[in-house]
Amino acid sequence: VKIFTMLPNAPHVRDALFGADGAAAAMEPGALYIDMSTIDPLESDAIRADLGAAGIAMVDAPLGRTSLAAEAGESLVMVGGTAADIDRARPLFELIGDTVVDCGGPGMGHRMKIVNNYMTTVLNVLTAETLTLSDAIGLDRDVAIEVMMGTPAGRSALATVYPDRVLKGDLSPAFMVDLAHKDLGIALDLAGKVNVPLGAGAAARQLYNIARARGRGRQDWTAVYPVLQELAGVGQED
Amino acid sequence: VKIFTMLPNAPHVRDALFGADGAAAAMEPGALYIDMSTIDPLESDAIRADLGAAGIAMVDAPLGRTSLAAEAGESLVMVGGTAADIDRARPLFELIGDTVVDCGGPGMGHRMKIVNNYMTTVLNVLTAETLTLSDAIGLDRDVAIEVMMGTPAGRSALATVYPDRVLKGDLSPAFMVDLAHKDLGIALDLAGKVNVPLGAGAAARQLYNIARARGRGRQDWTAVYPVLQELAGVGQED
Amino acid sequence: VKIFTMLPNAPHVRDALFGADGAAAAMEPGALYIDMSTIDPLESDAIRADLGAAGIAMVDAPLGRTSLAAEAGESLVMVGGTAADIDRARPLFELIGDTVVDCGGPGMGHRMKIVNNYMTTVLNVLTAETLTLSDAIGLDRDVAIEVMMGTPAGRSALATVYPDRVLKGDLSPAFMVDLAHKDLGIALDLAGKVNVPLGAGAAARQLYNIARARGRGRQDWTAVYPVLQELAGVGQED
Amino acid sequence: VKIFTMLPNAPHVRDALFGADGAAAAMEPGALYIDMSTIDPLESDAIRADLGAAGIAMVDAPLGRTSLAAEAGESLVMVGGTAADIDRARPLFELIGDTVVDCGGPGMGHRMKIVNNYMTTVLNVLTAETLTLSDAIGLDRDVAIEVMMGTPAGRSALATVYPDRVLKGDLSPAFMVDLAHKDLGIALDLAGKVNVPLGAGAAARQLYNIARARGRGRQDWTAVYPVLQELAGVGQED
Repeated sequence: VKIFTMLPNAPHVRDALFGADGAAAAMEPGALYIDMSTIDPLESDAIRADLGAAGIAMVDAPLGRTSLAAEAGESLVMVGGTAADIDRARPLFELIGDTVVDCGGPGMGHRMKIVNNYMTTVLNVLTAETLTLSDAIGLDRDVAIEVMMGTPAGRSALATVYPDRVLKGDLSPAFMVDLAHKDLGIALDLAGKVNVPLGAGAAARQLYNIARARGRGRQDWTAVYPVLQELAGVGQED
Repeated sequence: VKIFTMLPNAPHVRDALFGADGAAAAMEPGALYIDMSTIDPLESDAIRADLGAAGIAMVDAPLGRTSLAAEAGESLVMVGGTAADIDRARPLFELIGDTVVDCGGPGMGHRMKIVNNYMTTVLNVLTAETLTLSDAIGLDRDVAIEVMMGTPAGRSALATVYPDRVLKGDLSPAFMVDLAHKDLGIALDLAGKVNVPLGAGAAARQLYNIARARGRGRQDWTAVYPVLQELAGVGQED
Repeated sequence: VKIFTMLPNAPHVRDALFGADGAAAAMEPGALYIDMSTIDPLESDAIRADLGAAGIAMVDAPLGRTSLAAEAGESLVMVGGTAADIDRARPLFELIGDTVVDCGGPGMGHRMKIVNNYMTTVLNVLTAETLTLSDAIGLDRDVAIEVMMGTPAGRSALATVYPDRVLKGDLSPAFMVDLAHKDLGIALDLAGKVNVPLGAGAAARQLYNIARARGRGRQDWTAVYPVLQELAGVGQED
Repeated sequence: VKIFTMLPNAPHVRDALFGADGAAAAMEPGALYIDMSTIDPLESDAIRADLGAAGIAMVDAPLGRTSLAAEAGESLVMVGGTAADIDRARPLFELIGDTVVDCGGPGMGHRMKIVNNYMTTVLNVLTAETLTLSDAIGLDRDVAIEVMMGTPAGRSALATVYPDRVLKGDLSPAFMVDLAHKDLGIALDLAGKVNVPLGAGAAARQLYNIARARGRGRQDWTAVYPVLQELAGVGQED
């Protein structure tokens, strides 16, 4: 038996499984539960443990890409589970997606989805901030978008500046922290003059301040990544 | 006579023109000054006015793309000036770039560059935040990057979610503000548990709070753009 | 029977009441449960409802002031509950505190505590930011503290600028939004030069941007409060 | 000859001194210039140097306290200058203020004013955030203010928690970083549910994340100050 769910958040998932008329009671040991929801990974871990106590296996498998992709069966599936359980679930994944990525073990699908959506939800705000600043200082929006689509502004840093520098351990400057700090300062100062609130950008500038205080001003601007790793106490780059 | 400069900031430009042995004194009425620096647009406007009083024309023409592109003559040039002045400067631009965009009038080149670099410098920080969160919760970095390169996380919102929604005045939800708000909340809560500082993301979430308070929770998540326009008092979308 | 708890967070409270050997099972209808923990008010509401179903009354009663005050029996108790239940609990409160405030109904004690600690925990960070900026630009710390203790910087805005202006509906400027915006801009610009990360201040400046964009630049600086009420969609001031 | 000014910002000061019909041209060597403006300290330093080249002394002397205090002659004057120059200016200060603080040397008055106003302008926003959260979750505003005026929320941390802990080098916990982190997390989570944007608080929480990542979770919450000093690379506490 396999059942799968896609629900708003962890309490809904828990209720669907363990609430009154919950599915878990109807599942026998050896059954497989597949959760495609976007939920708190630590709650996902707890649900997996509770299911495991009843002999039920779990694969976490949220979807990437847009709802249009989902309708077309072109989703990307971010999978977390044991290799054997993933294999059992694979026929389902192939129905709904065209890319299946094993994210590295139980719970890693839900973790990956949160990381992925962190990037997209903040990027959405950054894009709104950028266009609003552009509007406020009198640029034509179509021109602004045309220009940005022709520079790294219109692409992911993961596709442009990261691979050639910080991701291979090279912090020789293609563009210096000091210059990024300066340019972002000009933008925020200008935004202050035209009264555009740029919360994400104002926060971002503090990390450049820290990078400079740590003596990294003349390193490549991607050095903000190892700086942030240091602040968070996670395994470091350079 | 044409002269051009690429200098760190506005005081440097001003000094090069108007300081002791400044270039402006050596320029005759009718000369053309081209500035490729990335400087405060309002200071650029003042410099243009001072030059204009001496009969000297100015074109602002900062470069987009990376230093590697510049070395290869493949820069994008963001040009601000009158049509006639831009034409006079065009041979220079064609030497150093392969794309020349008229940004819409005097000063618009410098404005465009600040907007462009606002996007890139904050995106750099957002990317560092995303990868550090990924590291802290145990994801394999290569897997995380592979997944994100296959979803909108690895592309600009200007290439994916904006054109089909807010940029054509459609806020029917492909992905709702409420869901983006929820997912970003999970990420920030998780980051709090593993002690990863996510300043840009924490700031971004406040805009989703505002969007919801304004009754836009069930609109497309790109509705944060008209919300921000409203806050900044600039021309609005929907 | 009355029992009371002071525990780290809502799951601990719930477990103490409803877990294995939980207290709720030992309480009879008519008993009174008093929770002095600092917990999520919405979870507190759910716990109260669950207790109520068993006929058990609840008073939420977290403590204000410091641990030293608590040891001296000089705590302030923020109480939420029905008048009758509060009266039943009052003897306990009088043992541990010298000030008991009825916060306005069931759950309002827990709400009040979260609001109170929001202020204190952010104020702690603001104070650290202020002193670090002071250190970084070479001020003597004792002098800086002496000066601030002699100005509104060393007192709560609730004791100084709020009562005479926004709290009585008067936004005639004792100090204008435009000037606060300017001074905060100077501080952030200076901090950028000496590389001090001022996250709270950078965020705060965005609200002044919004206030100005809404035409409130020449109002009293406490106008940021009605501006924020507008953004949050709550009952407004002026 | 003594002249004094109180002007909006540094370009105004510079213009008043060095512009057409500027005062500096009318001042003889040995004259004293007193600036009570709130301006960028680095620009103040440059103005002082330019005056010094003409033999003119400068004292920076901005005012603390409110405009009402100024009208009553009860201002606090934050003075920067040499001891001799301050003595020359003292009669003026005694006319307009009742407290004169020598801030430690030339330029230190302007520095002190920026630090002082950093605290007050951000505190104003923090107060607005706190009251808006209170409003949004249904607390009576008068009750909320009454409670906070009875706890450290209604006083400066410089008057309460700092002197007994971090300022004397003691980080034994009166209130732990871990608990401040938890309570602020509850507040932000709650604000997300009721859609109150709390930018300053969201930024502040990142510093608690960093403090915990640096192993300071069980230290006194005022440990955020040495953490921030470390990030900024300034002289440290413990």
